Amino acid sequence: MAPKSIPDIVIGRLPLYLRALNFLTAEGREITSSQELGDRLGISSAQIRKDLSHFGEFGKQGTGYDINYLRQQLRDILRVEHLWDVVLIGAGDLGHALARYAGFTGRGFNIAAVFDNDPEKIGQTLGNQEIQDVAKLGETVRSQGIKIAIIAVPVNSAQDVARALVDAGIKAILNYAPITLTVPSGIKVQHIDPVVHLQRMTYYLSQ
Amino acid sequence: MAPKSIPDIVIGRLPLYLRALNFLTAEGREITSSQELGDRLGISSAQIRKDLSHFGEFGKQGTGYDINYLRQQLRDILRVEHLWDVVLIGAGDLGHALARYAGFTGRGFNIAAVFDNDPEKIGQTLGNQEIQDVAKLGETVRSQGIKIAIIAVPVNSAQDVARALVDAGIKAILNYAPITLTVPSGIKVQHIDPVVHLQRMTYYLSQ
Repeated sequence: MAPKSIPDIVIGRLPLYLRALNFLTAEGREITSSQELGDRLGISSAQIRKDLSHFGEFGKQGTGYDINYLRQQLRDILRVEHLWDVVLIGAGDLGHALARYAGFTGRGFNIAAVFDNDPEKIGQTLGNQEIQDVAKLGETVRSQGIKIAIIAVPVNSAQDVARALVDAGIKAILNYAPITLTVPSGIKVQHIDPVVHLQRMTYYLSQ
Repeated sequence: MAPKSIPDIVIGRLPLYLRALNFLTAEGREITSSQELGDRLGISSAQIRKDLSHFGEFGKQGTGYDINYLRQQLRDILRVEHLWDVVLIGAGDLGHALARYAGFTGRGFNIAAVFDNDPEKIGQTLGNQEIQDVAKLGETVRSQGIKIAIIAVPVNSAQDVARALVDAGIKAILNYAPITLTVPSGIKVQHIDPVVHLQRMTYYLSQ
């Protein structure tokens, strides 16, 4: 297992490497190089070699990386070798998209429960789950020992939902509401806000 | 206007500062500090002061930042003072969520056209747009001079769509398909893939 001192920015790139390796496997490939991975990802080959060297010796000079072996190692490092159950809060448009998203399967995640506070939605089926009353959130998270949550609720409810999730034992939150959540230290949060990504690009556009 | 040598990682944090300032304004606040912004964002106050110093002198020692002025400056730096038209490709679950997303308005972006290749969807209304045949993509992008696109199509079509967008003159792409797109240099791409964010957190979770 990897030492604890790996910089977070390196950890952040490992899922990209894993995704690229999955594509190469799907293309029937068995060997790759840091150069090829770099070209695909827009990351320098030196950076890739340096990142991977944190975790041991994966490639051999001149022969490249064994894709299958490296995939296996990355899945192990990222702890997605087994399937993580995830709770999804919010069954609106975005919740629908997430609940039906095919990309979770095979990459380590399973939407195990879906919650909403709208009486008209509760009891309906979404993906392969019945939408549950958000009042039962804590009970379900605790009884199933779920550690990961996705927040897809309106911005005004997001912080309250986050608090309830943390109280119930959630350790990692992927937040789609356009607000930076406040959580206790030790709880991991990642934010997805399309406007932040768009604004990051408009800086470079001439008008 | 800002010099061109600002590191991309700094540019990437400016939308977060702008978002936090918008929240403070909504709360009726007029003055803030790098300390308060840092606490809200989980970024050190020293980092925030350093980032903002790239663009001039915004805060005064001891008096903090004028929120309105700083917001205005950030909107100007990020070029979201005017409204950018955006084309959305893909009218599935995710496309629906994006087309109806209220968070674009007031933050610089307007979904100006929606495309799909499904004959059953073409002609239907989504948000306040009629879904158009993707065959007309190039024509619409060119005639309206649109520079920004959001890709919300299945992974197998994403690279082809990206190529068509670049051919039509698109300069910035926000890609939701779980694949790293290959585009000519000079074209900006940002990727949103929930699994990459989830895998980045599972590394830290004990099983």
